Amino acid sequence: MIIYGRNPVREALRGPREVRRIWATKNAAREPWLSGPDRSSLELLVEPATRIEAMCGSPSHQGVCAEVSSFRYLSGTDLLYVDEPLIVALDQIQDPQNLGAICRAAECAGATGLVLPERRSAAVTAAVCKASAGAVEHLPLARVRNLVDFLAEAKAASLWCYGAQADAASSYEQVDFRGGVVLVLGSEGRGLRPRVAAACDLLVRIPLHGRVASLSVASAAAVLLYAASVQRHSAAE
Amino acid sequence: MIIYGRNPVREALRGPREVRRIWATKNAAREPWLSGPDRSSLELLVEPATRIEAMCGSPSHQGVCAEVSSFRYLSGTDLLYVDEPLIVALDQIQDPQNLGAICRAAECAGATGLVLPERRSAAVTAAVCKASAGAVEHLPLARVRNLVDFLAEAKAASLWCYGAQADAASSYEQVDFRGGVVLVLGSEGRGLRPRVAAACDLLVRIPLHGRVASLSVASAAAVLLYAASVQRHSAAE
Repeated sequence: MIIYGRNPVREALRGPREVRRIWATKNAAREPWLSGPDRSSLELLVEPATRIEAMCGSPSHQGVCAEVSSFRYLSGTDLLYVDEPLIVALDQIQDPQNLGAICRAAECAGATGLVLPERRSAAVTAAVCKASAGAVEHLPLARVRNLVDFLAEAKAASLWCYGAQADAASSYEQVDFRGGVVLVLGSEGRGLRPRVAAACDLLVRIPLHGRVASLSVASAAAVLLYAASVQRHSAAE
Repeated sequence: MIIYGRNPVREALRGPREVRRIWATKNAAREPWLSGPDRSSLELLVEPATRIEAMCGSPSHQGVCAEVSSFRYLSGTDLLYVDEPLIVALDQIQDPQNLGAICRAAECAGATGLVLPERRSAAVTAAVCKASAGAVEHLPLARVRNLVDFLAEAKAASLWCYGAQADAASSYEQVDFRGGVVLVLGSEGRGLRPRVAAACDLLVRIPLHGRVASLSVASAAAVLLYAASVQRHSAAE
């Protein structure tokens, strides 16, 4: 697949994917992360911006795109048998911007990985790589056939599943996010599907103090991920 | 100005701006929030989607756009002389998506308002209204000539100014965000300008536990706003 943009290509070079070839404008090709001595084995072709745009199909390429091996998803089980994992599970998030933003926040917060259903969900496209600022190159992502089954498997593995819901009785700041945890987030607008909500151990809300009805799913993810991250890292000290 | 999208138009109807006229597709015009009995005085014109797109200049209109009075900014001083305000100040945030997302998180977290410099900053355009899901209709926004002068004025009014910086010595979760507070965020990539950072009382970081270099500014804003909101609301109980 072709990925584009400075952060996505730079992070792909630092991550596990094979980077087969890079196309860059004359200016971008001079950037230190592309032209340093450890990059001598890289196949780097200088092209005009119009050619790069045509190759990646987006005007957001920032002068660079790359051909990389296809994204390798894990299975849900791969994420569960880590010591006390912190997992984000997304229910029908279809917008690539939202998926990318959540991947970036999850990687920054030190999450173990992220779980996507195979159907009715955005997958890791070049737009998601861009929206994540390249974070998807370092974040284990799993695809599962059925999210409810995955949550059942997580509970059987002694993880706690917390679903975000705007009108839940419990507020997130009262929750103990230490240990093995799955944070479950639903799509903007519709929220969690009832069967997914029912599969959670506890539903939690992020209190709203204004007049609009909800946080964006990407902001909700950042708030919950960092609430969990702070508890888990202060417990470890 | 013309705003577009379901949430932006609905929130404009609930907010202080004058809504002069609404154009909607046949389907959108039937939605309860547009067609209810309390909407009888509304000038609502049914138009095909192509006409609505031409009027608002965006394909993201969701079947509805409206002519509203221009956005009214406050002065920075207006926000300072509220009892213990929680203010977000943005240094050179130029991307309308980021500005909209930060406005939405600020409104949800119960912030008093948001401060933008007059120059080199996004203003409240229709794209920002859309990205904020209409939250800008309920969030006081101030424009200031000079952000450093505003921070000096805030400090003189006994507020504490906290600047977000990736490599700051203090981590945000150790900070007391109660009382009058300004959260200062810089642009994606460049961060706070040195003079703005120097004008803050304390620089705070959000710990990064992954391999990518930074959170998005919208995620950072959500994390800091909710850290402050939780402290302030639990203190009030």
